Amino acid sequence: MKLSKKVMGITLAGSLAIGSLGFGSSDEKVEAKKDPQQAKNVIVLVMDGVSSSTTTLARWYKGEPLAMDGILTGGVRTYSAESAITDSAPAGTALATGNKSNDKLVGVLPETVTSPGVDPSLADNPLKPVANVLEGAKTSKKATGIISTSEIQHATPAGFSAHATHRSQYDNIAEQQVYQGMDVVLGGGKDSFTTGSAKNNRKDGEDLTKVIESKDYDFVDTRDELLKSKSSKLWGAFAPAELAYDLDRPQTKPNEPTLAEMTKKGISTLSKDKDGFFLFVEGSKPDWAAHANDPVGMISDVLAYDAAVKEALDYAKKDKNTMVIAVSDHGNSGISIGNQNTSKSYPSTPVSAYVDPLKKAEMTLEGALKQLKPDKSNALEVAALYGIDHPSAEERKAIEESSDLGKTLVQLLAARANIGFTTGGHTGEDLFLYSYGPGKPEGLVQNTDIAHTVAGALGFDLKKLDKQLFVDAEKAFKEIGAKVSIDSSDSQNPVLVVKKDKKEAKLPVNKNIVTVNGKDRELNSVTVQSNGKFYVSKEAVELVKKGR
Amino acid sequence: MKLSKKVMGITLAGSLAIGSLGFGSSDEKVEAKKDPQQAKNVIVLVMDGVSSSTTTLARWYKGEPLAMDGILTGGVRTYSAESAITDSAPAGTALATGNKSNDKLVGVLPETVTSPGVDPSLADNPLKPVANVLEGAKTSKKATGIISTSEIQHATPAGFSAHATHRSQYDNIAEQQVYQGMDVVLGGGKDSFTTGSAKNNRKDGEDLTKVIESKDYDFVDTRDELLKSKSSKLWGAFAPAELAYDLDRPQTKPNEPTLAEMTKKGISTLSKDKDGFFLFVEGSKPDWAAHANDPVGMISDVLAYDAAVKEALDYAKKDKNTMVIAVSDHGNSGISIGNQNTSKSYPSTPVSAYVDPLKKAEMTLEGALKQLKPDKSNALEVAALYGIDHPSAEERKAIEESSDLGKTLVQLLAARANIGFTTGGHTGEDLFLYSYGPGKPEGLVQNTDIAHTVAGALGFDLKKLDKQLFVDAEKAFKEIGAKVSIDSSDSQNPVLVVKKDKKEAKLPVNKNIVTVNGKDRELNSVTVQSNGKFYVSKEAVELVKKGR
Repeated sequence: MKLSKKVMGITLAGSLAIGSLGFGSSDEKVEAKKDPQQAKNVIVLVMDGVSSSTTTLARWYKGEPLAMDGILTGGVRTYSAESAITDSAPAGTALATGNKSNDKLVGVLPETVTSPGVDPSLADNPLKPVANVLEGAKTSKKATGIISTSEIQHATPAGFSAHATHRSQYDNIAEQQVYQGMDVVLGGGKDSFTTGSAKNNRKDGEDLTKVIESKDYDFVDTRDELLKSKSSKLWGAFAPAELAYDLDRPQTKPNEPTLAEMTKKGISTLSKDKDGFFLFVEGSKPDWAAHANDPVGMISDVLAYDAAVKEALDYAKKDKNTMVIAVSDHGNSGISIGNQNTSKSYPSTPVSAYVDPLKKAEMTLEGALKQLKPDKSNALEVAALYGIDHPSAEERKAIEESSDLGKTLVQLLAARANIGFTTGGHTGEDLFLYSYGPGKPEGLVQNTDIAHTVAGALGFDLKKLDKQLFVDAEKAFKEIGAKVSIDSSDSQNPVLVVKKDKKEAKLPVNKNIVTVNGKDRELNSVTVQSNGKFYVSKEAVELVKKGR
Repeated sequence: MKLSKKVMGITLAGSLAIGSLGFGSSDEKVEAKKDPQQAKNVIVLVMDGVSSSTTTLARWYKGEPLAMDGILTGGVRTYSAESAITDSAPAGTALATGNKSNDKLVGVLPETVTSPGVDPSLADNPLKPVANVLEGAKTSKKATGIISTSEIQHATPAGFSAHATHRSQYDNIAEQQVYQGMDVVLGGGKDSFTTGSAKNNRKDGEDLTKVIESKDYDFVDTRDELLKSKSSKLWGAFAPAELAYDLDRPQTKPNEPTLAEMTKKGISTLSKDKDGFFLFVEGSKPDWAAHANDPVGMISDVLAYDAAVKEALDYAKKDKNTMVIAVSDHGNSGISIGNQNTSKSYPSTPVSAYVDPLKKAEMTLEGALKQLKPDKSNALEVAALYGIDHPSAEERKAIEESSDLGKTLVQLLAARANIGFTTGGHTGEDLFLYSYGPGKPEGLVQNTDIAHTVAGALGFDLKKLDKQLFVDAEKAFKEIGAKVSIDSSDSQNPVLVVKKDKKEAKLPVNKNIVTVNGKDRELNSVTVQSNGKFYVSKEAVELVKKGR
């Protein structure tokens, strides 16, 4: 927080009056109120795409209670502004910003509102970026961080740290994350920091790894480096894209950290800040496994997620001033314990009939399929790795004649394990809410309530914050007698140019930088281009107004 | 409670020392402690076979929040002693007695324990009856009642009011219920009170309707009679077997009451008792509809159940001394919002795409199929009643050529409404727990915890109660120097005969009666025959010992 506090000092020298947001000069000590609804720290952990059946099955597989079990407090409604079943981008946006949104949208308001009960006026400012709880925590001088097992640019972590009109805009998302002023960023997605020819390499020519290093992060890319780091700013990118499934990692990617290790390190790093912290953690891949109807991958990464929840809870229980929220963002796959096999026999079918076939799998579907030779000559070995050992004649035939081995294997395993699936997509049921600590949410809540509860616990209001962080640049600068134009000479890196009197300011997109009369200043939030407009903070407008 | 209190007075004249159970002479006032964990009244409402998707879908269908939504407090683990997925008999036994049990068993201990974490010693007394919370409430001088939309002898209400080694023993269950000393019994299942040739008519030659009337119940069999009754003892049997689905009732069975009406009447009747009451309510038929994969029936009777929850909550909120618990006993059907249709399109599929096709149904599957003519000539009209209007050529062909119209219709409707199902049986996921009032359960609990929480709130201990109510008769009477034999001269109505010195006592099975030297006495609990043994209360043994 060293850097951002310095910037904060400069900001306040500019006489901004944003007292209600918890701003204060770097010399002022903001005493935490002893309000029982307030928390010094908040940790939000999302398990992506996990239905109740998945959690139940994971518990049976583990053979003992989950960490989550101890903090079950209610339920969450997950639908988006336009659909009964949400995808991860609007789900992340809801959890992070308190606004239901549309498919693909990350941290911006919806264009379409059809869901009953959702305020239609949400679509009055389509695609406008909206402030999230991480930005609020940062504005409140707290240390902040995001952790995921997917690319860190993936929809859910993006929802907590960026604003984009399509979740696939890894370029924009990664750049905003790098300029977001976070203290801890751990996950996959290294490709989006570097230029090159890989799918997710940057197209804008910027090498963000250099920017990361220039910002005094300890930049690590292995488990060992992570665990050894003593920096108070830590950036870990452990894979070009996503990390391995927890079950597969020891065999395939032993240099990657577990989600629990990242979480523990994230907490110990962020908790160095005396003002408190906000941390977002995602167990990303239960969702991916669910799309593939792979119960082994689902269980693998729900248990890995639960171990991360345990780290968060262990800290919170000691600290006594930390709120922990654990939720899934949506159901996935329509998984059920019980299927057509058990329609009649379920009342006497023991737990082992569901769990034992799953335990035979040594790898997830992804892990097993990666062992498949190009000529598919080892399909039976791959099947055995996935738990289909001693195949029956019928199973053997299905494996040998399969044109889609992954699909065949999950069907065979589901049949053996008496597990049902209804879809390759998400599902729309209410999910369990897990929470702990001061101000925790309870009962049946909306996914959007999570964001507002976090904000309330940390002492800020998301709607007020939003009016500070994302104003229409053209309109706001016009009000102070300035003119704006867009410099698109570098088409991948457009810059907002503001002219007032004889002075000029520049605001490059996706960065927290304003250049006033040739002098760079760091802002508290990033400048966002969306739907043809630039959105900047009031802080930026004030700096330009003052001409310094 | 008039009668049972008189009996209680007699009992206490016999010098029984069961102080810990809240016994007191009829002249003693037992002051309720002001323990915040204690409740004067408890209402347990079970919705049978309802998964989270069903509740979510019912809420969308209704278009506004459910009563349950306001009291969501945690989750319930539902597995039985032998299976990951429970059937209703062991589920009811768990909820009512605090013991996980086996398939088919009602209010008796299991023979088989295989589920991880379940105490194997539970099977040390296989099929032994165990005390339930209703018996505990009655012993604590509270008024008691059971309500269901199924036959009142069905597994779940039976679990709260009877003890049988097979849920199909309606003869035994009905007889125990009639002699259980309850104050309110409302539901279906009239056939089990009378002799005759129908499937569930009594085989033992006893006309229980006469017994019910002799016990001063107001015996009603229509909605009007129910609503008009002013009795403090009320027995309603509104159908030979189950009541109609809520959606169908106005068209098919307008003389049957709704579940909410029965619940409201039950509460107003039971609350006349100054000592408080225990009421069990079941919305039985969401489960039946789920077995048939009929989302219309599921929604119909979840909403009817929710209206009953509202009645309970309205009372509890005014009374401020009533605990309300609402739970499902197990998942069913693997229903999901979303299916193969939506595997790709779910992120933009609106709520209406799921709900509108369901709203076209004017009747549940059961209701619609009852309109089918023997020659099936009106199959298309029946399909339209079930919401399959303007069938496509393909749908029309499926309907006209169907050999199982019910199955065809639910498949067509699920396809139209984008609903998935995985099974015709139950499912094993954790379910939501809803609770309200003093001492309410919260967090993730076992179904068995519900029973212990209810007992604790009402001030008794189920294990201690069990040692009072169900002792091995042969052993207990031997200890007081008596000999037992079984008089099976009426094979359907065996009687335990106890001889001590020159005195003789008789205990007819399934009744709360002991005849000592020709004189009938009413007991606090029924005598149960199970697994070749008779189980009687200590109260009975003491009466025989004293010879009076």
